[in-house]
Amino acid sequence: MQELIIHEVGPRDGLQVEKQPVPFEHKVAWVESLGAAGVDIIQLGSFVNPEKVPQMADTDRLFAHFSAPGKRPGKAVLSGLVLNERGLERGMACGVEMFCMGVSASETHSRKNTGMSPHEALARIIPMATQAMAAGKKVQVSVQSAFGCGFEGPIPTDRVLGLVKQYLAAGVSAISLADTAGHANPMQVEELFGAIRALDPNVEMTAHFHNTYGLGLANCWAALRSGVRSLESAFGGLGGCPFTKQPAGNVSTEDLVHSLQRMGLRRDIDLGKLLEVARAVGAFFGRELPGFVLKSGSIVDYKPAGN
Amino acid sequence: MQELIIHEVGPRDGLQVEKQPVPFEHKVAWVESLGAAGVDIIQLGSFVNPEKVPQMADTDRLFAHFSAPGKRPGKAVLSGLVLNERGLERGMACGVEMFCMGVSASETHSRKNTGMSPHEALARIIPMATQAMAAGKKVQVSVQSAFGCGFEGPIPTDRVLGLVKQYLAAGVSAISLADTAGHANPMQVEELFGAIRALDPNVEMTAHFHNTYGLGLANCWAALRSGVRSLESAFGGLGGCPFTKQPAGNVSTEDLVHSLQRMGLRRDIDLGKLLEVARAVGAFFGRELPGFVLKSGSIVDYKPAGN
Repeated sequence: MQELIIHEVGPRDGLQVEKQPVPFEHKVAWVESLGAAGVDIIQLGSFVNPEKVPQMADTDRLFAHFSAPGKRPGKAVLSGLVLNERGLERGMACGVEMFCMGVSASETHSRKNTGMSPHEALARIIPMATQAMAAGKKVQVSVQSAFGCGFEGPIPTDRVLGLVKQYLAAGVSAISLADTAGHANPMQVEELFGAIRALDPNVEMTAHFHNTYGLGLANCWAALRSGVRSLESAFGGLGGCPFTKQPAGNVSTEDLVHSLQRMGLRRDIDLGKLLEVARAVGAFFGRELPGFVLKSGSIVDYKPAGN
Repeated sequence: MQELIIHEVGPRDGLQVEKQPVPFEHKVAWVESLGAAGVDIIQLGSFVNPEKVPQMADTDRLFAHFSAPGKRPGKAVLSGLVLNERGLERGMACGVEMFCMGVSASETHSRKNTGMSPHEALARIIPMATQAMAAGKKVQVSVQSAFGCGFEGPIPTDRVLGLVKQYLAAGVSAISLADTAGHANPMQVEELFGAIRALDPNVEMTAHFHNTYGLGLANCWAALRSGVRSLESAFGGLGGCPFTKQPAGNVSTEDLVHSLQRMGLRRDIDLGKLLEVARAVGAFFGRELPGFVLKSGSIVDYKPAGN
């Protein structure tokens, strides 16, 4: 079984729905701990209009901070989400190493999220991806709402694969399927990623799940079995897209790493540190976060406890 | 993909840890609804000392009620948990149709739960199983703490398979592995059930998971992939063995059925009725139960909701 890449999206997808502004210094401390824990990629923020999403207003400053010499959090690659050309320009200027960008497979979700149809969004994303790759940046493109949409219901597989084919034709080989609404089930995950692998066995496949119906880790396991090499997750299980119906948290990074380590994978990551971050985030917001291991405690290295 | 049997253990494993006594009439109403929903087997209770577990004191009365002519809840088979010869005798007298009995693979858990070592417990269980089968009863034997123990840590696979072999040698072909402490991971689930199938491809395999670390449904999916034909779950995700360390709820029946129906399986079960039962149980105890679909709502038959 391959060793999965952990892409921590807590600072972006975890925080973007939170109304209480997180001070820059807190974000820096959390990201430093995530880096020290050994996650592979950290998504520091998204380049959106700060008036629309004030929580993301310090994204440029975070990249400037962490891309300065000697400031890298552990060995983590710094990823950022961009939605348009303006965002790409900002990201190029402040030190983004990996650009994430995507198109929703749901017409309704796409319009709510970006004001464009999937077709229009794709026509803008492809040149942005090409431009970022030409500048030597890592680029990952995604299909959002790939497994279903709270507004539109089931999303036809062909529509998802159609977008994937256009990504591949444009020369992007890192592709993420995002389960924005949490609708995915393990059988569907295996089918959809299997279909992508059938298109091109060299695609670097990433999955992004939300735990709306309790299937987050089940879908991660199905993805792992299907050849997915990277998973996106958020500290504490925080998060949820504000433009979907029935938003719910991301798969929790601690729960994901805990389950991998129970299977003997990614034992190099410091789970204790991940739990510290999640506890700090929970303390900041003053509420219990959805993660399971936060409540139950780790049993990765459990010792007989006496009777 | 085979269609799984749903064995509802809420009235037993779900309620046994609850201090607030549930009146007989409430249990009857909940079981009637579970039957109407179409679950296949309902575990009405356990035959334990009522002084030790007052919540189970009306088990004999429940069996007498539901085994009377015309009283069967839907098409459900009536199962009961027995721990010793006295329990078997009581069960024989009141209408149990399927006897569940087991041995813990953990020495410590076994002693806390039954006062016996696994070896001693097995020596008592085998004759009980033989006697019940000779009386024409369905018998399912289990290995508890099969995937790990909060007291002892990992449980060697050979110890679990050793118990399974002795069950098979005694002629019992319905075997359950119970993840009493919630330690199972999907890789282990596939390995362990795969090893049992390699011993005897005709074993009727059942799995029983707790959601302590968020892996309940992931383990169910792994079990389904491994040829398991029956899953045990509890309404609302209630439950937890009082004699384990760090008890946590069973896999929620509604969440399990919801995920199966999303995969096109068991569409014959009335998920709305299962949700009604879980809501009624939550209202009785006056708290939010762990189930996800209870909070998020079903998307099995979701319609585009307008924008």
